[in-house]
Amino acid sequence: MKSDELSIALHKTYGGKITTALRDTGELTREKLSAYYSPGVGEISRQIAKDPSKYGQYTWVNNLVAVISDGSAILGLGDLGPKAAMPVMEGKSLLFKHFADIDAIPIVLDVHTPDEIVATVKAIAPSLGAINLEDIAAPKCFEIEDRLKAELDIPVMHDDQHGTAIVVLAGLINAMKVTGRSLADCKIVVVGAGAAGTAIIKLLHLYAQPTILAVDSKGIVSRNRTDLNQEKQHLLDYTNPANVDGTLANALTEADVFIGVSQAGILTPEHVKSMHADPIIFAMANPVPEIMPDTAKAAGAAVVATGRSDFPNQVNNALAFPGIFRGALDNGVPAITDQHKIAAAEAIAMLVPHPSPKEVIPSVFDPRLVPAIADVIR
Amino acid sequence: MKSDELSIALHKTYGGKITTALRDTGELTREKLSAYYSPGVGEISRQIAKDPSKYGQYTWVNNLVAVISDGSAILGLGDLGPKAAMPVMEGKSLLFKHFADIDAIPIVLDVHTPDEIVATVKAIAPSLGAINLEDIAAPKCFEIEDRLKAELDIPVMHDDQHGTAIVVLAGLINAMKVTGRSLADCKIVVVGAGAAGTAIIKLLHLYAQPTILAVDSKGIVSRNRTDLNQEKQHLLDYTNPANVDGTLANALTEADVFIGVSQAGILTPEHVKSMHADPIIFAMANPVPEIMPDTAKAAGAAVVATGRSDFPNQVNNALAFPGIFRGALDNGVPAITDQHKIAAAEAIAMLVPHPSPKEVIPSVFDPRLVPAIADVIR
Repeated sequence: MKSDELSIALHKTYGGKITTALRDTGELTREKLSAYYSPGVGEISRQIAKDPSKYGQYTWVNNLVAVISDGSAILGLGDLGPKAAMPVMEGKSLLFKHFADIDAIPIVLDVHTPDEIVATVKAIAPSLGAINLEDIAAPKCFEIEDRLKAELDIPVMHDDQHGTAIVVLAGLINAMKVTGRSLADCKIVVVGAGAAGTAIIKLLHLYAQPTILAVDSKGIVSRNRTDLNQEKQHLLDYTNPANVDGTLANALTEADVFIGVSQAGILTPEHVKSMHADPIIFAMANPVPEIMPDTAKAAGAAVVATGRSDFPNQVNNALAFPGIFRGALDNGVPAITDQHKIAAAEAIAMLVPHPSPKEVIPSVFDPRLVPAIADVIR
Repeated sequence: MKSDELSIALHKTYGGKITTALRDTGELTREKLSAYYSPGVGEISRQIAKDPSKYGQYTWVNNLVAVISDGSAILGLGDLGPKAAMPVMEGKSLLFKHFADIDAIPIVLDVHTPDEIVATVKAIAPSLGAINLEDIAAPKCFEIEDRLKAELDIPVMHDDQHGTAIVVLAGLINAMKVTGRSLADCKIVVVGAGAAGTAIIKLLHLYAQPTILAVDSKGIVSRNRTDLNQEKQHLLDYTNPANVDGTLANALTEADVFIGVSQAGILTPEHVKSMHADPIIFAMANPVPEIMPDTAKAAGAAVVATGRSDFPNQVNNALAFPGIFRGALDNGVPAITDQHKIAAAEAIAMLVPHPSPKEVIPSVFDPRLVPAIADVIR
């Protein structure tokens, strides 16, 4: 059955993907109800008012993540609004529970400016243990995440940015081993300068300062461009030190790594052949990659990764976010830092002891993933 | 074990009262994950974007209530803020699940003005199937509920107001039968003009237009008072048609019914003796009522109700809200109206076929409650 058809069938059967349950599965006697609610619960309120450090100990917030979206960039579908975003956020909440036993609740927002989104999330933040921002359009996603990280004392992560960047870095660490390269010496072309592309560029720069070119629909991002928004101008802090101009083809000449978070089919065999020998291709457009793996291999690619589960090396955010939030909650981490992202990428990479062209990224079903990542989020 | 001690023990054991779970308890295969999340879930998003009426069919919102508070009036403890409110809201969420199998999530707010609270709740409203406002201080609770009811197309109910009012009306309907009275002919004194008192007055007026006197800490609410806020001035539309002034003692002379949502011990045997023969006493101050039941009986009370589970006739909001929200969700009701409240009160009252002084209100554990109430919320 195709995933669309199975999705409709499952959603019709269950009418939603998550539910709530009681932690105490024993009989709820009259005495217990008077302890879980009024009058007994008043003592818990008094204790928390007196000593807020008891908040986690006494409430479900200790294991709670909100998956928050305004629906402005739903999967590859664009801005369909909050209600259309709910099935995706509920699905992500299901993944949190399934992979990391984290209680996650989907929250979709009927406000869309950064000021309104920040105000709303801050207003409900005491209800939450951590915040996974999801499917919020670039460039506003950058400002929203930055402001929430600065103003809240709980972990906040926009997974479309950092989840993808962490898994890409993990895959590249192992692809370096497969092709005998050093990341610092690589020329990397990142195509797509939205949420994921921007985060990938920043994380790769932080990790190894390789030579990076960012390419958007108008070509290479350079100082000579007059059409760059503020966020793309900031990319020049990490990319294009020689300030070259040109097309995707120009950018790829003698490059070592192609990283695509862009559109189906934009990478041709000729592009691949113009790269250095044994190039590394991460073609992550969904559902159809920038180049199909077989085509890339035939053109000389040494390692190919995609976003798809039906090819080797799936760049799947679910490799990273369950363990990252598991660790953040368990270890009382107030913020997810750049060092956490690098540590998570290294932990993921380490789960493939003998990297090969067919395996630079572990399976999302590897049971070691969540504990290995959670252990380094401290 | 006292309820405080049991409460601490249970909260230490479970570290919170609720959790999330997956509706699909079968094995989550790779195919299912691709249907519950990307790429399959995209088809559900597309369908909802095209036809928003499918929203309930395909998401957990169809069974979801948020229990929302800013912590400004937590139980009898006052304004302890959002974090101290969480154990109570989580406890109410537990009651929703236990009594009505409704998925409820606690949301505590770090904003406190009506404008901010309304804006925040509206912003997250697409995430919710219905809204239970809780423990928000009077008088702002009135404006907040009124505005949210007007501006949202999902049910909104401030339970401290209406849950209490509904159960009081149910109890009075049966107390009328026990004492051979007609509610329309009664003189009723309501002491405490906050959230619950105001809602009780409005609902009794709507139901039977009895003669009502509202009494606050300064005495009878009358047109001669110069210290009344807007909400208390509005009470004059329903109370005190003869515009009398005076103390609680003055108000109670020859009254038929005392309804207290005020303070421990304010009702004396002399007060009760000054009322009409066979007076009805609803003394709902918590945890210590306005008069203890034995004392009231000794002074001549025909029927006594309190907020406590260790005496007969407990006025417990849990008699009403599970069935009301169960009905609202199941029957797709966009708002909980005054007619719903009256219908719910009558449904509760009907569950006691032979009212007696010891039973004018059914037990909160009566399994017929939720279906009987849900059936009339249409």
